[in-house]
Amino acid sequence: MGDTVNTNASWLGQFLHERGIQVDKITTITDQKEAISQVMEEAMGSADMVISTGGLGPTLDDITKKCLAEYFEVGFVHVPEVETHIKSIFKSRNLEYSESNQAQAYIPENAELLFNAAGTAPGMLFREQSTWLIVLPGVPHEMKHIMTQVVAPMLQDLGALDVLETRYLKIAGVGESHLADYWLHDLSQHLKNGLDIAFLPSTGQVSLRITARAHDRQQAVQDVESLAEMIRNRLGDLVYTEEKEESLASALGRILETEKYTIATAESCTGGLMGHLLTETPGSSAYVKGGIISYDNQVKVDQLGVMPSDLETHGAVSAPVALAMAKGVAQRLGAEVGISATGIAGPDGGSVEKPVGTVWLGFFTPSEHFAVRAEFSHNRSLNKLRSAITAFEIARRNLLGMENLPYDLKKITPERMVD
Amino acid sequence: MGDTVNTNASWLGQFLHERGIQVDKITTITDQKEAISQVMEEAMGSADMVISTGGLGPTLDDITKKCLAEYFEVGFVHVPEVETHIKSIFKSRNLEYSESNQAQAYIPENAELLFNAAGTAPGMLFREQSTWLIVLPGVPHEMKHIMTQVVAPMLQDLGALDVLETRYLKIAGVGESHLADYWLHDLSQHLKNGLDIAFLPSTGQVSLRITARAHDRQQAVQDVESLAEMIRNRLGDLVYTEEKEESLASALGRILETEKYTIATAESCTGGLMGHLLTETPGSSAYVKGGIISYDNQVKVDQLGVMPSDLETHGAVSAPVALAMAKGVAQRLGAEVGISATGIAGPDGGSVEKPVGTVWLGFFTPSEHFAVRAEFSHNRSLNKLRSAITAFEIARRNLLGMENLPYDLKKITPERMVD
Repeated sequence: MGDTVNTNASWLGQFLHERGIQVDKITTITDQKEAISQVMEEAMGSADMVISTGGLGPTLDDITKKCLAEYFEVGFVHVPEVETHIKSIFKSRNLEYSESNQAQAYIPENAELLFNAAGTAPGMLFREQSTWLIVLPGVPHEMKHIMTQVVAPMLQDLGALDVLETRYLKIAGVGESHLADYWLHDLSQHLKNGLDIAFLPSTGQVSLRITARAHDRQQAVQDVESLAEMIRNRLGDLVYTEEKEESLASALGRILETEKYTIATAESCTGGLMGHLLTETPGSSAYVKGGIISYDNQVKVDQLGVMPSDLETHGAVSAPVALAMAKGVAQRLGAEVGISATGIAGPDGGSVEKPVGTVWLGFFTPSEHFAVRAEFSHNRSLNKLRSAITAFEIARRNLLGMENLPYDLKKITPERMVD
Repeated sequence: MGDTVNTNASWLGQFLHERGIQVDKITTITDQKEAISQVMEEAMGSADMVISTGGLGPTLDDITKKCLAEYFEVGFVHVPEVETHIKSIFKSRNLEYSESNQAQAYIPENAELLFNAAGTAPGMLFREQSTWLIVLPGVPHEMKHIMTQVVAPMLQDLGALDVLETRYLKIAGVGESHLADYWLHDLSQHLKNGLDIAFLPSTGQVSLRITARAHDRQQAVQDVESLAEMIRNRLGDLVYTEEKEESLASALGRILETEKYTIATAESCTGGLMGHLLTETPGSSAYVKGGIISYDNQVKVDQLGVMPSDLETHGAVSAPVALAMAKGVAQRLGAEVGISATGIAGPDGGSVEKPVGTVWLGFFTPSEHFAVRAEFSHNRSLNKLRSAITAFEIARRNLLGMENLPYDLKKITPERMVD
């Protein structure tokens, strides 16, 4: 019916590919016995490994287990370990244990249990001649849990599956091609079969994913670490985190917290996004003082101390206004660091000198004060996000004493102001 | 390899299901001739309609067209209309037209052209006995374009495909089950085969999707409109928009703009999210003055006029502080409407009286001033978003003169303050 996108297929595809197993075919079928039997027969006859997901729940349309028992012409056995586990889940959720749930503790006689610590439906392994049939629940996090925690170690022991080690190095404020050509150049000689690097770009950022695949973990760790170490040496502090899930705002927060600095935001075109992103991190109240969203020019004057004459002469999207906003918010809110953004988010409001996507970003600490001009895209939401990301990266690099600005932007200080 | 999630399959599944066609099987295979031929043979022998996507590009691994010509044992014909179209695309993109692109203007002799106005790879239709084989490019927007603009009308003319009419009614601040039981009850007698209603919940909101399917458009429009009209009568102004893509922030903005009111936000737990969401709408500078992100208590005092004694006696998450924030930001930024949020976003910082998820929202206009207490979840990001959505819906309902607050929350006015 199209209600569900098959992300299990792509996750399994990537999981297997990265570990040296080639996927031949993916088939999606209806919950009908004939369809299941037919595709099972065909798959078992043509592949070394068959993975099935879904249809293991307690409701009427979950018929996979019954089809399998018929296919293999076997009965069911009760697995006490699974029943105990299901009962404990029901107890912890204050739910009543019913007959249909009890059925989940039975598996076909010829199945080996793949214990599902993440849910109630047990996974199963059938070994038929040279083919392995792995049967998993369809709930993505349960499927992934059994695959990574139970199936992968079994296959590794057999030597059927390689070990995979992964490192993430995240960078902001450097274009993907500039990162490749200028910073990383000639990596090819360091790569080999099973050792790869992927560039994963997102708005204003690039994640480098290094993967090493080998028969044993020690080799994989050694491979991935030697390449990661070389890239760390080339990039230095450009890498803002090696935690896959850590945001740039959170990495900036770590530095602020270490330095015992606080930050405040003065936001025109970003409209509050910088504050929102900074406060997504738990515990950010330790270093976020707050901010002023100065969408209206009068708010820039009244709440941030922007000079009306600067607004008149240079316009709201200008160096003097960005400078005054960053300084004003830091001083009025009592923060060591002030960052600001004022720009033309679009889709309208551009001019020849200041097209849509023109943004001035301001930065202020007691020891430094400058603004930079950037030009982004024609998309309103993307302009807001790139402005926030670039402002965070300017602050992060400055606090670490790095010289280069993101995208090699130029500092405009109050003393040498041009517009 | 798992790099691509097959969203084409779910899009086509939904497209066909909604129009009365049942999908039997979805198969994903490698770009190899044997695999393509085998699955094509099987599909053509078992279905009334077969849809293939992908493999029509100009590069070496795009072999679908060649496989089809071999399968049907036919040669290729040149389609001048397609060549002209491809050349005009290349010209508009300043690209050189090459030999491999010229090959895209050829299709198998027995194919009917499904013209692809959205790209260079033509779609094709093969009619073999009673089975239709529809061959489409894999690029999602090209596939969707040909399917909706070229294939759907052909199938409708044949009577093979129903016409679908859809209406969206979006509601905020009412739980899904309360909406169904209390507001909409007994809809079943108004539904019939081909006329359906779906509840699509998202954070703090529900979209009602009404779909009518019929053989001709007039009937579908009549069906969908008669149900939509009945629901409009039951819900009245609870429906904030009937535009599928319009956000609640944008709907609130429409009312502010009509009334010539401006708005300002005072944000503690939301950290700037309310300002960010309001300013996602192009042209929002007409009614957004700005805001104060008062994450730190001192900022609440200095920038918003919150009384230090209230912070001390009642704490930052309290009615008096939410009231003072909303009033303070409206008055200091010169806006007619002030909204505020102060709460415990989590995951830490809760207590017995004020568990994680406790939020006070404030509302101020020259004629009304009140606060409400809400309790949300344990998830930081969701708490921020639900706080923003609920504050917007409080403002929207108030400006429209509606009595009920979202989730039947209670107004606490400055005169009858309790904590």
